[in-house]
Amino acid sequence: MQKYVYMLQEGNKDMKDILGGKGANLAEMIKLGLPVPNGFTITTEACHSYYETNKELSDVIKDEIINALHKLENITGKKFGDAKNPLLVSVRSGAPVSMPGMMDTILNLGLNDDVANGLIAKTKNKRFVFDSYRRFIEMYADVVKGYSKSLFEKHIDEYKKEKNVTLDIELTEEDMENLTNDFKNIYYEVLHEEFPKDPIKQLLEAVKAVFRSWNNERAIYYRKINNISENIGTAVNIQEMVYGNLSKNSGTGVAFSRNPATGEKDLYGEYLMNAQGEDVVAGIRTPSPISKLKEEMPKIYNDFVKIAKNLEDHYKDMQDMEFTIENGKLYILQTRNGKRTAAAAIKIAVDLVNEGKISKKEAILRVEPEDLEMLLHDTFKEESLANGKIISKGIAASPGAAAGSIYFNAKDAIKAHQNGENVILVRLETSPEDIEGMHHANGLLTIRGGMTSHAAVVARGMGTCCISGCSNLVINEEEKWLKTASGLILKEKDQISLDGATGNVYLGLIETEPASINGDFQIFMNWADSFRHLKVRANADNPKDALQAKKFGAEGIGLCRTEHMFFEKERIFNFRKMIIADDLKTRQEALEKILPYQKEDFKKLFEIMSPNNVVIRYLDPPLHEFLPKTDDEITELAMSLNLSTAKIKERIDALKEFNPMMGHRGCRLAITYPEIAEMQTRAVIEAAIMAIKDGYKVVPEIMIPLVGSENELIYVKDIITKTASEIMKKNDLIIDYKVGTMIEIPRATLIADEIAKNADFFSFGTNDLTQMTYGFSRDDAEKFLKDYYQKNIFVKDPFAHVDEEGVGRLMKMAIQKGRGVNNKLSLGICGEHGGDPESIYFFHKIGLDYVSCSPYRVPIARLAAAKVAICEKMKK
Amino acid sequence: MQKYVYMLQEGNKDMKDILGGKGANLAEMIKLGLPVPNGFTITTEACHSYYETNKELSDVIKDEIINALHKLENITGKKFGDAKNPLLVSVRSGAPVSMPGMMDTILNLGLNDDVANGLIAKTKNKRFVFDSYRRFIEMYADVVKGYSKSLFEKHIDEYKKEKNVTLDIELTEEDMENLTNDFKNIYYEVLHEEFPKDPIKQLLEAVKAVFRSWNNERAIYYRKINNISENIGTAVNIQEMVYGNLSKNSGTGVAFSRNPATGEKDLYGEYLMNAQGEDVVAGIRTPSPISKLKEEMPKIYNDFVKIAKNLEDHYKDMQDMEFTIENGKLYILQTRNGKRTAAAAIKIAVDLVNEGKISKKEAILRVEPEDLEMLLHDTFKEESLANGKIISKGIAASPGAAAGSIYFNAKDAIKAHQNGENVILVRLETSPEDIEGMHHANGLLTIRGGMTSHAAVVARGMGTCCISGCSNLVINEEEKWLKTASGLILKEKDQISLDGATGNVYLGLIETEPASINGDFQIFMNWADSFRHLKVRANADNPKDALQAKKFGAEGIGLCRTEHMFFEKERIFNFRKMIIADDLKTRQEALEKILPYQKEDFKKLFEIMSPNNVVIRYLDPPLHEFLPKTDDEITELAMSLNLSTAKIKERIDALKEFNPMMGHRGCRLAITYPEIAEMQTRAVIEAAIMAIKDGYKVVPEIMIPLVGSENELIYVKDIITKTASEIMKKNDLIIDYKVGTMIEIPRATLIADEIAKNADFFSFGTNDLTQMTYGFSRDDAEKFLKDYYQKNIFVKDPFAHVDEEGVGRLMKMAIQKGRGVNNKLSLGICGEHGGDPESIYFFHKIGLDYVSCSPYRVPIARLAAAKVAICEKMKK
Repeated sequence: MQKYVYMLQEGNKDMKDILGGKGANLAEMIKLGLPVPNGFTITTEACHSYYETNKELSDVIKDEIINALHKLENITGKKFGDAKNPLLVSVRSGAPVSMPGMMDTILNLGLNDDVANGLIAKTKNKRFVFDSYRRFIEMYADVVKGYSKSLFEKHIDEYKKEKNVTLDIELTEEDMENLTNDFKNIYYEVLHEEFPKDPIKQLLEAVKAVFRSWNNERAIYYRKINNISENIGTAVNIQEMVYGNLSKNSGTGVAFSRNPATGEKDLYGEYLMNAQGEDVVAGIRTPSPISKLKEEMPKIYNDFVKIAKNLEDHYKDMQDMEFTIENGKLYILQTRNGKRTAAAAIKIAVDLVNEGKISKKEAILRVEPEDLEMLLHDTFKEESLANGKIISKGIAASPGAAAGSIYFNAKDAIKAHQNGENVILVRLETSPEDIEGMHHANGLLTIRGGMTSHAAVVARGMGTCCISGCSNLVINEEEKWLKTASGLILKEKDQISLDGATGNVYLGLIETEPASINGDFQIFMNWADSFRHLKVRANADNPKDALQAKKFGAEGIGLCRTEHMFFEKERIFNFRKMIIADDLKTRQEALEKILPYQKEDFKKLFEIMSPNNVVIRYLDPPLHEFLPKTDDEITELAMSLNLSTAKIKERIDALKEFNPMMGHRGCRLAITYPEIAEMQTRAVIEAAIMAIKDGYKVVPEIMIPLVGSENELIYVKDIITKTASEIMKKNDLIIDYKVGTMIEIPRATLIADEIAKNADFFSFGTNDLTQMTYGFSRDDAEKFLKDYYQKNIFVKDPFAHVDEEGVGRLMKMAIQKGRGVNNKLSLGICGEHGGDPESIYFFHKIGLDYVSCSPYRVPIARLAAAKVAICEKMKK
Repeated sequence: MQKYVYMLQEGNKDMKDILGGKGANLAEMIKLGLPVPNGFTITTEACHSYYETNKELSDVIKDEIINALHKLENITGKKFGDAKNPLLVSVRSGAPVSMPGMMDTILNLGLNDDVANGLIAKTKNKRFVFDSYRRFIEMYADVVKGYSKSLFEKHIDEYKKEKNVTLDIELTEEDMENLTNDFKNIYYEVLHEEFPKDPIKQLLEAVKAVFRSWNNERAIYYRKINNISENIGTAVNIQEMVYGNLSKNSGTGVAFSRNPATGEKDLYGEYLMNAQGEDVVAGIRTPSPISKLKEEMPKIYNDFVKIAKNLEDHYKDMQDMEFTIENGKLYILQTRNGKRTAAAAIKIAVDLVNEGKISKKEAILRVEPEDLEMLLHDTFKEESLANGKIISKGIAASPGAAAGSIYFNAKDAIKAHQNGENVILVRLETSPEDIEGMHHANGLLTIRGGMTSHAAVVARGMGTCCISGCSNLVINEEEKWLKTASGLILKEKDQISLDGATGNVYLGLIETEPASINGDFQIFMNWADSFRHLKVRANADNPKDALQAKKFGAEGIGLCRTEHMFFEKERIFNFRKMIIADDLKTRQEALEKILPYQKEDFKKLFEIMSPNNVVIRYLDPPLHEFLPKTDDEITELAMSLNLSTAKIKERIDALKEFNPMMGHRGCRLAITYPEIAEMQTRAVIEAAIMAIKDGYKVVPEIMIPLVGSENELIYVKDIITKTASEIMKKNDLIIDYKVGTMIEIPRATLIADEIAKNADFFSFGTNDLTQMTYGFSRDDAEKFLKDYYQKNIFVKDPFAHVDEEGVGRLMKMAIQKGRGVNNKLSLGICGEHGGDPESIYFFHKIGLDYVSCSPYRVPIARLAAAKVAICEKMKK
């Protein structure tokens, strides 16, 4: 029979799927004999059942919950709803995949007037009891009834004003009692019902609310950006309450077994005495560093150090732990493998190898390729930084460097980012509602909160630069200004720069520069390279990108989009002249003028990438993309070409297309205008000859785009080989060059055998292949795919992660057919999927030779390629 | 060793591939002992060699030609270039596939001054010799040198004016000699070289010119519209000249063994005494009917009748023969299976079966499905015809009825047709240069020429209505007017109507009506139906089309495009209201108003098609297609909706798409707006229930378009089944309905097994599937595909004939996967390929259950389905 509820004693760390991460680890800690508040876990399967039965708990589930509750009463010796010896519980979500802060929690559940009075009698602490009670009402109203906390908070503010106090701690036990009564009244007023007295009802409603919170907006958004399936659901953990706010001898904190920002091997964390956990996480009071606990409570500190080491050894990874001290007794509330910056992840992995705890392979598997992105973020240029004016300093909560205009709320930040601005989001403190805005910001700055505040945790997860706890700044979010200690006022759109590595805030924009790979990172990447089979090339259209790619370990260029070379002023002029031309002669003259530029560009790329290959894609976009759009631009072009505007407009009209994606582009251009392919061939081959004569090893790979039939390839290839032969003959030098094609049209995959007979290589253009296989263009699909995600029709974005079922099947077919007739065929991929780890795993499995991605994703691709190779070997 | 030249004695009728149709049949007639002028054939392989060796004849080929010439000299006892007993030859093209008039011919080759004098001595007919000589110069200049005949003709006109004569026959022998000399001078003047004296040089140049003519513009166009491969090439036939213009006892003619317009079993043809063949074909003089030859030359007539019967029995088909009488001796110059109207084809096929000459299967194979189109053309409505005013009567050269505006040249006709006009092309006589214009005309009217004139032959081939030899009309092509016998003047754009069945020309537009199937046609179609396995349905969106489809034998509706039902005034208003709506309620209200119309439409279709099924496709096009485009229309809509124009424009902007083909359409609409699918389901199910209650058998098939993933289908199907169940419950009637999907997105074919689990049927939408598989949109591709055909990159139009290699492979995959999980899956196709015979052959082979096509192509599809079934059986 299906079991929906597990006592903590019944679970273990491998049961995450049904107990959630939190529940499985609580159970594991019980097994290890650690001091964990007792309780039980309601499974993810109960969550599925809840959604299947019209958002109700079935009788079976209810019975199991009540049953588990009785067991917990037996274990704790307390009784739920009993005024004399009451059991209070926490109700916490816990999905199989960590989604910190995304779902809801209710603490102090089980309180009502009778229980409160009993508890006062027991604890002799009336203030604590009513503080807990009023918090419970507030949380219950928010989580179960969807009634915003802010109205309760507003009432407290008014109450404090009336009483002429500023801090919560100044409120007396009578104040707390009054507030509790006020809260009950507010609850009744807005919800037209009494606050529920029955603890069982409270519990069941809370469980349902947590299940419901699986589908709140921010959780959905979080899952979408983190690529988490909608279908896994959450578990709910019910535990006996322990109180960090019971006395001065109580407290609560979070700590990492190593530093999550740097990876240093040193207990790292924060705590607050006389506080509940939410006070630490919310960042409302600034906590003390864990090292201070050593002085304050040495025995507790030592116990905790031992437990931390124990847990790290057990999990063989850095742990992120929550603890509470209740009247001098230590409880562990949670442990999990800690989130960390990529730098820390790498240092920890390398250290664990050096400590003999894990193997190199395990080390590689420990780091998520995607997380490397944050290491590859820009840093400030030394010289620019030297002149920077520091206006504040906060906690270096998430590394990186960001410079941009400041905005004071998520909505403005999103809008500014969409307008192409670099955005620094500045907040008093962030909350889960801000998550979308944070995602659109280049950097985050908060006035309150520490290393484990919401802003800090989320920013590290996103790889966004963040400085938190910048408490010497004064902010007014409503009026949108910020004041520094020296009295400088900054308003919306003013520019600042953040150094996530030091916590320094600078006035104005400081120039950034790309990251580089060294130290532990270098060691780690070398290990990764030793395992992988897939080569990694970069998509680069200019020397700057090519150099960056090389620094990041690119083994050649997998895609050079030649059209990007046409956009400089002189070039675009001649290119437009070519497009407007009525006759072959004028076209050839214009192309003749572009030739030297293109040749020079190619030569530089060859030299930078030597001895690795460079894949050059011939002109791809439809010609109308190169023509001006506005009347002014058209007039300007007409004058410069000495033509009438009517003539230009006529040509623009003639080039208009109904569906440009499916129009006159790719090799179709070379078929209509062979002279373009001829010019590009001259540029490639002459540049290669020049570079070779200068002593470089160069193998250009000429790539013909958008091929859908054998004859298209043959036609364009004939132009190439004829032109190349003439040039080589003239230069009396035979060079090695390849001619291949992009596989980006569904039909190309179906006749890949015919194409492969005439091609040295295939490079899958998975962007277009995805669009055409699905039959939607990316630009247009964005609008309706929202509905698809919301209605669970699509789980993943096929433009981010290759569609293995559809597009992948076509790729496999193409590979099989292509290699079947040409076993020397080289196979690569140059769509955006080339930099996506999940897609790279697939590309490895289907036997590609290389992936090509943007320079900044090269290290990510290298690591992903290593991981899939290791996993494959482990399976064998 | 490769053999490039065959004496006629060496060939036979089965060697068409290398000897061409003409050459193979000449050889066959020699074998049958018929009087054929002797000669030899240069093969199509020599043609390929010519194109491969840079448009030159290789020495091997030249040697074989000279060698064959010597053999011909031996056979005839004459000598090439010999003044005393000269051999003159004809040089004629002859491809494996008949392309009448498309390539070039040279007659009288071998003449020079010496030979001419010798021939005068021999024939004692100076006028004949110089007439032949001047014609030879003219043809040679035209064909070999590309110098237009018209300048020579102009010179003759001037010469006649000077001499004050009107007809060629009034010219004396001196005149002919003068003209010959003038022609030689003109030749020298314009070409800067002497007219070649060496007969061998004349011959080799003529052969090359014929090979070259394979690639003249009109031949390429003819091949394109007739779907003939560019790669087969032509053979060249060299024969001893025989002369129909040698004496009054000479003549020339063409004849069919049965009537090519009606199929009547009666020798049918025309001849001219004292004329060369080109005079008959060109239609310059109006010839006599063949029956007159019986009186004029009874022996010759009887001989010819015997030969015609002999040939028809031998070929078991109606023959099209050319003959020449030289000084009272009959020669057969050509025989071939005669082109005929579809009506004749059917009558002949049915008659041949009844005469016991061929089987029913053979009869079916004799008729090209595509040719039936002409039988399905409109005829005049009786009542409208009764009031018609006849202004002229000509030869009923090609059946059908046409009404439209007159144009006097091909260019104007093409333009007018492209502007959407119905066009009647009126010419003195047509020439191959007119072919593209003829293709764009609804009807053809010529003043000169008979049943076998160029206009008549081509029009019958195209299935275009044609009246030829309307000699009581006077035309001025340059000034663009036409005068009737009664003096009525008609100018460009004036309207007339042509009855191709009677030869009557009417003033003004006469209403036409659709054709119907009866008589021999009915018998023939019944035979066809007895052989075929594929069912044939029709694409019909309204009762009128559905009725026509049923008359033509459609077995159900395979595609009803529901959006076509939204365009009527009241409906489009509510539909637009629905689109503009911001909220669900307004949308639902607007849909509620559309519901009754749609229900009524569906009910009518169900009743008409009962007991056959009707496939209803849910809303497919992007919503912006339904919104107005111009400012005026927008203002009107805004007023009628009581909204601001700004609001309307905002919505129009929001709906704009970059690539509408790949945008928000098909099932994607139903996912965003489930209420549309719900309304359409209500309309379908309620209409079906009403029709069933009225006693009709109805099985609606609901088709969800543009499905690319299983979840899309499931989502929309859920709406359908839920809605349908509610309605059936309310009406207390369970009806049989199907839910299926269009397979038109490449991805759908790849995951067809998943889709088939949830579908009762697949209907391949090969239009979109072709576009997405090739990655080009039809509208845009038109521009660049011209280059593709010209450069031989594409041989066939993939929108006309299904691409078996690419699209076909996806279809096969989908069928295999789909049937693999669902063996009851019904399979059809509703793209335009459903009416294309070549594609139908393929659809039969891959195992579809039915094709669906436009009502007018239903009989064509029925015949094609029969043919492929017969051929398949024959192979087994």
